[in-house]
Amino acid sequence: MHPFVTVIDWVAVAVFAISGALVASRKEMDIVGFGLIACMTGIGGGTLRDVLLDRPVFWTVDPTPMVICLVSALLVFFTAHIVDRRYPYLLWADAVGVAIYGVMGAELARLEGAGMLVSVVMGVMTATFGGLIRDVVCNETPLILRKEVYVTCAALAAATHVGLSAIGVPAVYAAGAGIALGFGLRALGI
Amino acid sequence: MHPFVTVIDWVAVAVFAISGALVASRKEMDIVGFGLIACMTGIGGGTLRDVLLDRPVFWTVDPTPMVICLVSALLVFFTAHIVDRRYPYLLWADAVGVAIYGVMGAELARLEGAGMLVSVVMGVMTATFGGLIRDVVCNETPLILRKEVYVTCAALAAATHVGLSAIGVPAVYAAGAGIALGFGLRALGI
Amino acid sequence: MHPFVTVIDWVAVAVFAISGALVASRKEMDIVGFGLIACMTGIGGGTLRDVLLDRPVFWTVDPTPMVICLVSALLVFFTAHIVDRRYPYLLWADAVGVAIYGVMGAELARLEGAGMLVSVVMGVMTATFGGLIRDVVCNETPLILRKEVYVTCAALAAATHVGLSAIGVPAVYAAGAGIALGFGLRALGI
Repeated sequence: MHPFVTVIDWVAVAVFAISGALVASRKEMDIVGFGLIACMTGIGGGTLRDVLLDRPVFWTVDPTPMVICLVSALLVFFTAHIVDRRYPYLLWADAVGVAIYGVMGAELARLEGAGMLVSVVMGVMTATFGGLIRDVVCNETPLILRKEVYVTCAALAAATHVGLSAIGVPAVYAAGAGIALGFGLRALGI
Repeated sequence: MHPFVTVIDWVAVAVFAISGALVASRKEMDIVGFGLIACMTGIGGGTLRDVLLDRPVFWTVDPTPMVICLVSALLVFFTAHIVDRRYPYLLWADAVGVAIYGVMGAELARLEGAGMLVSVVMGVMTATFGGLIRDVVCNETPLILRKEVYVTCAALAAATHVGLSAIGVPAVYAAGAGIALGFGLRALGI
Repeated sequence: MHPFVTVIDWVAVAVFAISGALVASRKEMDIVGFGLIACMTGIGGGTLRDVLLDRPVFWTVDPTPMVICLVSALLVFFTAHIVDRRYPYLLWADAVGVAIYGVMGAELARLEGAGMLVSVVMGVMTATFGGLIRDVVCNETPLILRKEVYVTCAALAAATHVGLSAIGVPAVYAAGAGIALGFGLRALGI
């Protein structure tokens, strides 16, 4: 992958892992719970995407994303108690991650030869299923079922990228447009 | 696949998706929640089956079942509010789907060379795990743990099909007998 | 596999299946619920491990572990009502299973060529995700999020085995040391 894409991907992993760790903090879990929930949230969606596309699961090839999740969990574990109101951070972290993951998931599916609908679905799944797993495991009603905007943003980001790519726009512009639109829609609602 | 089998498969996808959308309706979700729960219920069991058998996941090859789920979700979204008592529909939709999926899952496992026990288990899994995912995600105690009859019907349908196929009965009769017995047992209990 | 390893594996499957069946008993499920929860708890972690490593799922190759789960469920179903206080049994069964599964999962990942971190993670996952699935499906807050010691023991068992194997200790001693340490740490906390 292009180094820029790799960095973008790592940022998305970190923000999702942080959103997971903040939920662990709200649930007053111990440090192992922080790490587990951070990993599930950060790499759960991409793991499902890779399993369904029958690609090698990304973190078994290069465990960097898992290390990022564990480090993020540690950071939140030792700093969350000084953050007074955590909820806004959770929202913004999710918004950034959802847009980036939506595009990344769709692009990986496209590279595997998937059609447009399946590519968009893989983008949505990559972006939202980490959070879904987080909420199901933490025994909460999943956020994506209460706040349709998450799924809509992921779908907008993924569909923009897939649509622009299909008419020949270079991947980096298509991805940029997708991330900007997905994040923009989410930002309007915060 | 034989066109008749394809149609049967699509009917089963639709009835399961509708049962998922009816739960989304009871939970007063928005349209995105309807679509997500309909997809999970309609294609979740078959997705798990394909992942475990290491087959290409069926809806990544041909996205028709996913389109059927989304259309079913839309239909229920715009018509569920005029249905007074929804519960009986949920039960009948599940009964038909369970029998068909039980046979389909077992047959696909058999074609992959699985033994008889594993084939029956795959049938049961195809038939019941969509509903299990639906209930787990919607934060309800899974129906299949409260109503053993679902699993029993799926197992009866799958075992009948696998057993008759093993003694040389042509697939279409074995499947018909399995679906009839599985549905019949369920119908007795409604 | 070496016959001794096979027997150890079967024992671990049985103790996990029993721990699942005891939860089904506490939840007053019927016999089908016993069987389902026993199977999910007994083979769920290893199933996820095999899917993520892209190995054939172990019980589709040889269904013995599934038979063990079903037999264990039957045994608990007919004997659990004479056991007065079930909770201690659940704890000890989990402790043995966690240590064994932690080592087994790590060893299988190592044989697939996974690095040390991924091998340890696979061990932890094999050891803890069956119980996680059990608790999520039964709609309880997962035990591994409340009792960090489970994950710590699995990680200790897996890391000991992976570390000793990396410096050339024969597999059987590395595994023995891992199981002993993992179980010992857990036993201290009971």
